Amino acid sequence: MANRPGEFDLIKSLLAPLAKTFPGAMALTDDAAVFAPRAGHEVVVTKDAVVAGVHFLTTESPEAIAARALSVNLSDLAAMGATPTTYFMALMLPEELDADWLGRFTGQLAAQQEAYGIALAGGDTVSTPGPLAITITALGEVPAGTALIRGGACSGDDIYVSGCIGDATLGLALLKKDLAIADENDRRALIARHRTPMPRLRLGQSLRGLASAAIDVSDGLVADLEHICTASGVGAEVRLASIPLSPPARRLLTDGPAWFDKMLSGGDDYELIFSAPPASAGDISNAAREADVAISRIGQITERRELRWIDENGQPRIFASGGWKHF
Amino acid sequence: MANRPGEFDLIKSLLAPLAKTFPGAMALTDDAAVFAPRAGHEVVVTKDAVVAGVHFLTTESPEAIAARALSVNLSDLAAMGATPTTYFMALMLPEELDADWLGRFTGQLAAQQEAYGIALAGGDTVSTPGPLAITITALGEVPAGTALIRGGACSGDDIYVSGCIGDATLGLALLKKDLAIADENDRRALIARHRTPMPRLRLGQSLRGLASAAIDVSDGLVADLEHICTASGVGAEVRLASIPLSPPARRLLTDGPAWFDKMLSGGDDYELIFSAPPASAGDISNAAREADVAISRIGQITERRELRWIDENGQPRIFASGGWKHF
Repeated sequence: MANRPGEFDLIKSLLAPLAKTFPGAMALTDDAAVFAPRAGHEVVVTKDAVVAGVHFLTTESPEAIAARALSVNLSDLAAMGATPTTYFMALMLPEELDADWLGRFTGQLAAQQEAYGIALAGGDTVSTPGPLAITITALGEVPAGTALIRGGACSGDDIYVSGCIGDATLGLALLKKDLAIADENDRRALIARHRTPMPRLRLGQSLRGLASAAIDVSDGLVADLEHICTASGVGAEVRLASIPLSPPARRLLTDGPAWFDKMLSGGDDYELIFSAPPASAGDISNAAREADVAISRIGQITERRELRWIDENGQPRIFASGGWKHF
Repeated sequence: MANRPGEFDLIKSLLAPLAKTFPGAMALTDDAAVFAPRAGHEVVVTKDAVVAGVHFLTTESPEAIAARALSVNLSDLAAMGATPTTYFMALMLPEELDADWLGRFTGQLAAQQEAYGIALAGGDTVSTPGPLAITITALGEVPAGTALIRGGACSGDDIYVSGCIGDATLGLALLKKDLAIADENDRRALIARHRTPMPRLRLGQSLRGLASAAIDVSDGLVADLEHICTASGVGAEVRLASIPLSPPARRLLTDGPAWFDKMLSGGDDYELIFSAPPASAGDISNAAREADVAISRIGQITERRELRWIDENGQPRIFASGGWKHF
C-alpha cells in the first residue's frame, strides 16, 4: 500500500470538495446523485475511458492525465452542442500512486471544473493491479430538440473544421521521439496541443440550430468525417489545401511532407467537424466569431457516397488507412 | 490481438443491439446520448467500477461478471428508490478476451436488461494491458423530491433489512476455498448469492415516502449501517438475534460460529438497510409484501451516536473492523 489515504478518506479530503457546488451530489455521501435538467431541456450524456499506456503516455503528469480524461468527454458534449453540467468519475488506481499524485490530479480537475462551470457529482474509487485507468461520464444539457447529431448532413452542405488539424499527432510524436523538431517554441506549442485538448464547447453551443451535422475529431479527420458521412448516408469532397494547419505544422511539412497523412489520420485534435447549408455561411461565421474560434471551410457534402480528397492540382487522392483505431 | 472484432465492429454487432430500445442512444452511432426524464421526475445517477482480481475472481464466467457489473449499480439505484432507465458502460478489455467471451458477456447483459426494463445508451470500449475492468453508469428516475437518502434516520426509528445477510460472504469464501461445506445444495445456494446479486429495486421503489433513510449493503451490514448513522447524525442499536440468516448460513454457524462476524462485516449482500418511524410499521410491511421481499426489523435508531450490537443475553458487543474496505 502506497502512502495514500483510504477510499473513504480520499473521497472526503480530495473528491468531496470537487462536488460542493452540485447540491444533487450530496457531498458524495449517498448511493447516487439526484438532479433534474432545466425546464425544456434534455440531458446529454457521454462516457469515455482512458488507460495509461493506451490513451496517454505513462510518463505524463497527473495534471496532463486529469486534463485529458475530462476534456475528451467534454469534447463529445461540444460535438452535441451541449452545455456541460456535471460529471461522474471512476478512478482505478495502481498502488504506486500516492497522496501527492492524487492531490495534483484533483487540483487539475478543480481548475478545469472552474473553467467549465461544472462539478463532480459522484463515481467510484478502486484499486487495480493494472495500469491507471479513468472513466468519466460527462453530463450536459440542450434545449429540447436542438442537440447536434452526426446524421443530418445533406448533399451540397459546406464542411467546416475548427482550429487547426494535426498538431496533437505531431505533439505525441515529439513526446514519443518519433519526430524531432529543433525549434523549441514549435516543439512546446505542438506538445501543448497534444497535452491540453481544448473542447470546443462554446462553438458547439453556438452551432445549435445552424449545423446540419457535427462530430469532434477524436479518431482523426479522415475517420471522423467518414463517421458523419456514414451516419448521414452521404459522401464528401475535401480540398486538402483548405485544411487548416498551424504555423509549426506548416514549417515541419516543408521538410517532412510525409507527416501530412499522419496528421489527417491521427486522432485527438478535439476540433469540431461540422456541416451546414451554404445559405447559412454568414450565420456560421458569426457563430464562430461569437465563440472566438477560427473555422475553415474545407469542402462539400456530396450525394455520391465516397470520401474524395482533392489535391492542389485538382486531382482526387485516397487514404490508405482510416485514422487511428483504438484496437 | 485475440480473435475478436475491432472496436467499431464490436459496437455494431454486440453493443448496438443492446441499445435498440433506447431511442436517445441513436444506435450508439453518435458522440453522446440524449434524453429527458419523465415530467415531474428527477434523474438519479450512480457509477461503479469492477476490476478483475479486486471485485470478482479472475476465474468467473463472462455471465457472472456482466451480472455483477450491472447489478452493483442497480443496487445503488434501489437504495435511492429509483426506477432504472438506462446505463452507460466503459469496457476495458485485455487482449485474451475473444469474440466468444464478448458474446457471452453481452448476452448476459441483454438478459438483465430485459429483466429490468432498461437498455444500454452509450459508453466506450478500449483495450488495456491490465486486468479486465468495467465501469457502469446507471441512470434511473424518481418522482421529484422522493429519492431515498442516507441522512434522514431519526432517533426512535425502526431499522429493517431485506432478505438475508452474509450469504454472499460465505459464497465467496467457498469459491476461494477459505471455507468448505459438504452439502452440495447449501454450497450452490451460497455461491449463487455471491455470484448473482439481486438488486432490490421493487422494494426501494415501494419505500419512497415511507423510509426515513436507506442504503444498500455493499460494504457490509456493519459499515453500511454506520454510513446511515453518520449521514443522519444518529446511532443504532441492533439485536444480533434478529439479523436474518438463510438456512444454509444457520447450518454453517452451528459448526463454525466464528463466521458470524465475517458475515456482518463482509460486503456484497446487496440487500437494503432502511429506517422508518414505528408508526409506519404497517405500511412498511405492506410495501415489502407488494415488492415480494422478506424484511426483518433488526433494531432501533438511537440519539446516542454509536453502534451497539446486543447479543442474545442483552449484552452489548463491539465490532473490531468496519466491513470490507476497497483499499
